[in-house]
Amino acid sequence: MNFEVFILGTSGMMPLPNRHLTSAMVRRDGELFLFDCGEGTQVSLKRLNLKWKKIDSIFISHMHADHVTGLPGILMLSSQVDRDDPLTIYGPPRLKEYVDANRRILDMYINYEIIVRVAEPGIIIDNDEYTVSAFPLLHTKPCVGYVMEEKERAGVFNVERAKELNVPMGPLWGKLQRGEAVRLPDGTVIESDQVMGQKRSGRKMSYVTDTAYLPTIAEAVNGSDLLLCEGMFTADMEETAAEKRHLTASQAATIARDGQVAQLALMHYSPRYSDWELKYLLRDAQEIFGPTVLGRDRMSFDLPLKD
Amino acid sequence: MNFEVFILGTSGMMPLPNRHLTSAMVRRDGELFLFDCGEGTQVSLKRLNLKWKKIDSIFISHMHADHVTGLPGILMLSSQVDRDDPLTIYGPPRLKEYVDANRRILDMYINYEIIVRVAEPGIIIDNDEYTVSAFPLLHTKPCVGYVMEEKERAGVFNVERAKELNVPMGPLWGKLQRGEAVRLPDGTVIESDQVMGQKRSGRKMSYVTDTAYLPTIAEAVNGSDLLLCEGMFTADMEETAAEKRHLTASQAATIARDGQVAQLALMHYSPRYSDWELKYLLRDAQEIFGPTVLGRDRMSFDLPLKD
Repeated sequence: MNFEVFILGTSGMMPLPNRHLTSAMVRRDGELFLFDCGEGTQVSLKRLNLKWKKIDSIFISHMHADHVTGLPGILMLSSQVDRDDPLTIYGPPRLKEYVDANRRILDMYINYEIIVRVAEPGIIIDNDEYTVSAFPLLHTKPCVGYVMEEKERAGVFNVERAKELNVPMGPLWGKLQRGEAVRLPDGTVIESDQVMGQKRSGRKMSYVTDTAYLPTIAEAVNGSDLLLCEGMFTADMEETAAEKRHLTASQAATIARDGQVAQLALMHYSPRYSDWELKYLLRDAQEIFGPTVLGRDRMSFDLPLKD
Repeated sequence: MNFEVFILGTSGMMPLPNRHLTSAMVRRDGELFLFDCGEGTQVSLKRLNLKWKKIDSIFISHMHADHVTGLPGILMLSSQVDRDDPLTIYGPPRLKEYVDANRRILDMYINYEIIVRVAEPGIIIDNDEYTVSAFPLLHTKPCVGYVMEEKERAGVFNVERAKELNVPMGPLWGKLQRGEAVRLPDGTVIESDQVMGQKRSGRKMSYVTDTAYLPTIAEAVNGSDLLLCEGMFTADMEETAAEKRHLTASQAATIARDGQVAQLALMHYSPRYSDWELKYLLRDAQEIFGPTVLGRDRMSFDLPLKD
């Protein structure tokens, strides 16, 4: 089962010719999740040739124009396909007012249900397969980061061990694999964990922008297979970053290191850096955390299943 | 004095990788005028490398998402420069509500005055040098076309004729050139038009999208040096076009021919046509009006002074 992450844009504040506004899409088992939606997000989706018009959930970090003005277009164009399920959009309190105002004033044709929910810190989606959580960031407006995490999968069934324990092949194997205990014809009870290997952890992706540095971010993203994180400024701009409540690339790397993530992809670059100058952000980050890449528009990640 | 027209986008309904949403900019004697502002307009401006952050006036055709959702970004980024003059935005009645809602909900930092005016049919800007007029179109929502037209310039001063009439070189020449009559020392009165050639007409640009075909459009755009006009569908789609209240390329050409314009640039293409299929729109238009070009993103026109 694929868990793919597509970076749709890496620019902060304003879109540039080669850098759309910061946004990402996750595709997992046919479901689509969009993180932020600045102006131009749909062009990136089109360029990636993703069949994106049935997005399941959208997660908005905060109500600044560069993170939300692409929403009206996305909501309208999603009406070009038929869908039964509603689209849920999570974000800060004023998100509903924004969606409602745009729908009303632009009189948009929308052929499906839209649900807008406030992304309160904590778990906001919880089903059999995964959770999505929001956690507080510190910006000039209410802002949250998001973590999408698969639940543990069962361990590997040990056929040799089952045979040694005289469990006959057939329905009893299935029960053990589903975590149930079984009773053999001779009365012996076999517990599932006698034949099942250790549970295998799921995959985890975190999305963090825009924020001042907070030690709590590392806790929230702990153990992520992929952390998409704002790295707006070079290390020498730390003061400016703090003032504007943004992260330097070094701070992003510190979060990645302290959170023991597997890989960090930087994004939300200041327009002050030309495309070739982004190498300085990478340099700053890699001094602290080696497995860092410069996120670029339309870069994709296929997170492997563990074990 | 330059009168330049830049096509910022040519797509209708949704932005495509090579076709931004329909929008155009006029630059005349240092003043900037923006026509429509869909999502992504600022990327086109950036690509053209225009210093666009002091737009004087914006003209919105109608309140559909593909013509206005780029406004919040443009308004916000215009705050990156200092300006004393207000920015005036003309458009349909609900424009003010849209601008206000976005400013309020997104809490945008804007460091200059924004005036929103309803573009009632007739002259909406009138100064010494040019007028801008709005005229009604027929779409699914209130929609207007725009005409920007320079006023006539004085004719050429005929030096030979002035000498024949014994007007001494000096201040009297200046008076005649400014359209005043002068009295010579011998009492003869010389009228300005005795020495001045015919007045020279100014340049005219028209912007027409989205609309069903109306014969009145040709009257409004009559004599334009450049007509930017929607040509959304091929001729065989005329019924669909009428239903959706859009123009075929043939209808755009009919308007250009009947309005005796010098040049027609098509735009606002349906996403159903790939880039190479746009040639069919051109073919349809040129059957009716030869001086037609396929408008393309970032195409520019430099309208020459007459005579």
